[in-house]
Amino acid sequence: MEPDEDLGALFARITRRIVEAERPLLAEQGFSMWAYIAVSHLAISPVGTQLALAQAIGYDKTRLIAVLDGLESDGVLTRTPDPADRRAHIVTLTRKGRARHAAAQRAVRKMEDGLLAVLNPDERSTLRRALATLGGPTPDA
Amino acid sequence: MEPDEDLGALFARITRRIVEAERPLLAEQGFSMWAYIAVSHLAISPVGTQLALAQAIGYDKTRLIAVLDGLESDGVLTRTPDPADRRAHIVTLTRKGRARHAAAQRAVRKMEDGLLAVLNPDERSTLRRALATLGGPTPDA
Repeated sequence: MEPDEDLGALFARITRRIVEAERPLLAEQGFSMWAYIAVSHLAISPVGTQLALAQAIGYDKTRLIAVLDGLESDGVLTRTPDPADRRAHIVTLTRKGRARHAAAQRAVRKMEDGLLAVLNPDERSTLRRALATLGGPTPDA
Repeated sequence: MEPDEDLGALFARITRRIVEAERPLLAEQGFSMWAYIAVSHLAISPVGTQLALAQAIGYDKTRLIAVLDGLESDGVLTRTPDPADRRAHIVTLTRKGRARHAAAQRAVRKMEDGLLAVLNPDERSTLRRALATLGGPTPDA
């Protein structure tokens, strides 16, 4: 049986739903979606230049700098000149930034658990495994 | 065990991968991504106004009209004034439009099968079912 809908359309719709469900949870911690994406990356890879961060998350560097300006004035991160290249800036999460990211992530994970509650445990674990495979490193990447 | 990555980030990355894999296949049939989304909707719900189409696919009406202009001059669809409301236009896929959509969709489905080939048959069918549940109608929709 041929499915009615392309996989891409289905993935895009689910992504939109998750993003919409996340938005208010992130806003509670003062994060826009891109701020949260940036901070989530920094929480795993804590130290890097603005440029490396922009490339890692796939966001326009100029726009990212505006996002980081806001996060810096909120005390979520600091920026210091890179000793190796004075034109570059090293971005570092603060303790407050880590705590806010952790709180936002807890809220997001709770929302996700609610979303996945319509599936049975077997379906959930198979879904997680399948998504990790499809979203993982590609042979040509 | 807590997953490393938010579900939203994973879904977004897989969606981007699928979209990038689709783009050249759609271009072979002369479709941009939004043209394909519009034509896919028309292939299921063949007759409707431009406004209804814009709402159904979640795209800005002014931008959609530019997309439809291109599709009309390619002979993929026709637009006729709505007898019920002369300011509105009814969009209809042509025979040529149907054929081009079918060819694009065949190429997309083949690419999807290749993408899902890393999963075993059980994982594939569970994934399809789980996605249909997560992407299906919501109680509050």
